[in-house]
Amino acid sequence: MDKQFVDTLFDVKGKVALLTGATGALGKAVATGFGLAGMKVVITGRGEDKCKAVCDEMAAMGIECSYITGDPAVEEDVKRVVAGTVEKYGEINVLLTAAGYNHAQPIVEQELSEWQKIISSDVQATWLYAKYVGIQMIAQGKGGKMILVSSARSKMGMAGYTGYATAKAGVDLMAQSLACEWSAKHHINVNTINPTVFRSDLTEWMFDPESEIYKNFLRRLPIGRLGEPEDFVGPCIFLASKASDFMTGANVAVEGGYWAN
Amino acid sequence: MDKQFVDTLFDVKGKVALLTGATGALGKAVATGFGLAGMKVVITGRGEDKCKAVCDEMAAMGIECSYITGDPAVEEDVKRVVAGTVEKYGEINVLLTAAGYNHAQPIVEQELSEWQKIISSDVQATWLYAKYVGIQMIAQGKGGKMILVSSARSKMGMAGYTGYATAKAGVDLMAQSLACEWSAKHHINVNTINPTVFRSDLTEWMFDPESEIYKNFLRRLPIGRLGEPEDFVGPCIFLASKASDFMTGANVAVEGGYWAN
Amino acid sequence: MDKQFVDTLFDVKGKVALLTGATGALGKAVATGFGLAGMKVVITGRGEDKCKAVCDEMAAMGIECSYITGDPAVEEDVKRVVAGTVEKYGEINVLLTAAGYNHAQPIVEQELSEWQKIISSDVQATWLYAKYVGIQMIAQGKGGKMILVSSARSKMGMAGYTGYATAKAGVDLMAQSLACEWSAKHHINVNTINPTVFRSDLTEWMFDPESEIYKNFLRRLPIGRLGEPEDFVGPCIFLASKASDFMTGANVAVEGGYWAN
Amino acid sequence: MDKQFVDTLFDVKGKVALLTGATGALGKAVATGFGLAGMKVVITGRGEDKCKAVCDEMAAMGIECSYITGDPAVEEDVKRVVAGTVEKYGEINVLLTAAGYNHAQPIVEQELSEWQKIISSDVQATWLYAKYVGIQMIAQGKGGKMILVSSARSKMGMAGYTGYATAKAGVDLMAQSLACEWSAKHHINVNTINPTVFRSDLTEWMFDPESEIYKNFLRRLPIGRLGEPEDFVGPCIFLASKASDFMTGANVAVEGGYWAN
Repeated sequence: MDKQFVDTLFDVKGKVALLTGATGALGKAVATGFGLAGMKVVITGRGEDKCKAVCDEMAAMGIECSYITGDPAVEEDVKRVVAGTVEKYGEINVLLTAAGYNHAQPIVEQELSEWQKIISSDVQATWLYAKYVGIQMIAQGKGGKMILVSSARSKMGMAGYTGYATAKAGVDLMAQSLACEWSAKHHINVNTINPTVFRSDLTEWMFDPESEIYKNFLRRLPIGRLGEPEDFVGPCIFLASKASDFMTGANVAVEGGYWAN
Repeated sequence: MDKQFVDTLFDVKGKVALLTGATGALGKAVATGFGLAGMKVVITGRGEDKCKAVCDEMAAMGIECSYITGDPAVEEDVKRVVAGTVEKYGEINVLLTAAGYNHAQPIVEQELSEWQKIISSDVQATWLYAKYVGIQMIAQGKGGKMILVSSARSKMGMAGYTGYATAKAGVDLMAQSLACEWSAKHHINVNTINPTVFRSDLTEWMFDPESEIYKNFLRRLPIGRLGEPEDFVGPCIFLASKASDFMTGANVAVEGGYWAN
Repeated sequence: MDKQFVDTLFDVKGKVALLTGATGALGKAVATGFGLAGMKVVITGRGEDKCKAVCDEMAAMGIECSYITGDPAVEEDVKRVVAGTVEKYGEINVLLTAAGYNHAQPIVEQELSEWQKIISSDVQATWLYAKYVGIQMIAQGKGGKMILVSSARSKMGMAGYTGYATAKAGVDLMAQSLACEWSAKHHINVNTINPTVFRSDLTEWMFDPESEIYKNFLRRLPIGRLGEPEDFVGPCIFLASKASDFMTGANVAVEGGYWAN
Repeated sequence: MDKQFVDTLFDVKGKVALLTGATGALGKAVATGFGLAGMKVVITGRGEDKCKAVCDEMAAMGIECSYITGDPAVEEDVKRVVAGTVEKYGEINVLLTAAGYNHAQPIVEQELSEWQKIISSDVQATWLYAKYVGIQMIAQGKGGKMILVSSARSKMGMAGYTGYATAKAGVDLMAQSLACEWSAKHHINVNTINPTVFRSDLTEWMFDPESEIYKNFLRRLPIGRLGEPEDFVGPCIFLASKASDFMTGANVAVEGGYWAN
């Protein structure tokens, strides 16, 4: 070990990253962090306007960045986005799947179609990206890193969550299975990060320190505060870098200690 | 506590149980066990002939038993089977979901439609039965027991298992979420059992003590032998009885210690 | 499978059980339950008076029962109790370790000696009984069942619990390691039960439905009520019977769903 | 978020780190990595010669480094080492506990005193350092990072490991409890890393690719190789840096996927 080894542990400059769900709060933060760390970033989402806005914002910070619209749960879209990324930057080194959907409802009230939408958005989309980026990474022959965004809910049930908790538990095990399938043979590391509630347009209301839900939540959160999108940038750069080369199939808790108590 | 309390702890006589997947090895064994313990048993499966054969075999043992055919992943079938069970025996006290499907394949070779079939057979079918039996049990107003058959694979990935391990992890969290949703309010306990490999037509080849796969498997199995369908009868009667009234949302390992090492 | 198989699944009549901590609420309930189920019961604890009182109470119910006093963390006492049990009833078929101790304190205030007392009472005592009963069971040559009472805290940390949670996590892994060591070779099954708070002299204050601690606790407990000592009788008879023959190295949650959310 | 934020995410320059077990392979690698990353490093161990040798080696690389000998399981030694570190560098920002001991033996052959040595070396030593460094960090009033070296064995039992697996499970829960105790109030993050087998003098024999133990081990290890001490440097710098500020009470698997399958 020498200084060079340590100085480059977290160096991800020049790597090509593809991110789904990058118009959401977490995805956007990580995409920006990846870009500021010197990665070439392709983001994807269903909405042209939102994708363009995020991309423009990143470009204004000097980030090398593109977007390709598409529905992450639709196979043809996924194939097109993966192909487009390769066309643009020649390869894919890092995949981060942050797209997702939830609709908390009692099971007795939830329509099958709505439950299927959760499963499709959270599990099928992840599976499709893992498959097609995996095919690409295997063909490239030099390994890669996949970071699947799961949830603290992947191991903790909740009323109304027979869709979401079910889906995220599935994502954890998908990562574990992919690690078994690929890590030794193709040097592709597949890990999840498992966040708890973080600030976004959808969760802003939970951040009111006077609300009962905020107080109840904090009782369970050893870190003493809810998450901010920035909290996930460090863990994701870590998982995209050689610093985590010995980690695969791990469900990395980035949840303020929610699982700890 | 008195002798009466202890003597009736595992008594399930007269309860009505609905079982999916009862034409498979585990489901059939548990259905028979439930019947021999005095429960009224309704089994369901897609094939008329197989259902009838199992039912006839049970009837020959003196078991009160019926069957209603149906695809457990198809909503209309599920509603019909649940309604038919209630019509036949007046209520449902115990649900056991043993239907399932697997096709181990590398993700890069697996078609989306095949992956969807695994998810649909293992997760959607479980969700549908939980929903419609739940509606029934809530209406009955006297609680109930649900036993969702998951797998030791629900927490342990495996090459080729991005469908099955994903699905079974989902089943575990579905049980945990349903416990949160129902146990306090409706006295419905929802637990999983998580079996490892047990003898069935599909796994018979693994039981050859000379084979490499058998030897490798046993290296991981503290109990020193693979499972037999009979091994699951005791745990399922336990989870169907008042002996387990304080257990809900649990993933009960019935796997010879596979998770222990 | 026949009716005889099912009818005798939970039959433990005539087995010899040794229980530590049987003067506590859970231990006493299980000892009584074992006795009412027809087992010969030896209880042990440090206090002669308490042991005698519990034993007298059981004897009055017609239970075959003895006690031998001893400190479960002291090796010579453990050897003497095990030998005395064998002398009395000829063999030991079931071990249940319910003795334990806790003193919740911030780590910065806890004396090392106090922390050591927790570790010694909860882990060392369990290890000593597992060792010496194990030696006896191996010599008997016909297997056996060990039920180590752990805690829901074994996987969930808590402020003030650097002793207790640490100790109980250790008990879980001790069971897992013993399963690896013994189950295949000697047919000794070793499992834990992991209870959450249950009613006892020490916890009676938590059961006040008006108190803040009760309300907070229930928020986390899907089952909707705290435990009663009787809640553990069924699970322990199950784990002592042949119904659980395929279970070893399992940490069985008997905690009202505390781990599920 | 700006470039400055991302560029300093993993920056630990100038922090003061205290490491136990730094004469072992993992501890030495991390100490060196910390030093090369610009931290001031104090190492401790029982042997003067070994400590001096490691320290000299680090100093020769330009690292600011000291050592203080002491037994990590002896309270007076721990207090002296902590005080000496503060005296030398004014404060402690990072604690890493890598000291440990194992002696794999069947429980029926292991002497109580030997088992106690494992518990004392692995758990008590960790508790003592957590306590006294915690007191110091709380007094400093600016938070801190603790990295407790646990093991993949903390959740996976093994024959012969009723000491080691028990101890390491305890370390995991100690971290979880300390997170509950300190993270919100004192901004001290406490996490474990959970390594699998890595190359050291003690394990060199396992690295023979022809040996049966190596082959068996690799069957369980998705990453396809055993660990090297360098594999832990990145994860430990990550956990010592602000990049992991939202992580506390986590058991971070750095085990090549051992837990994943």
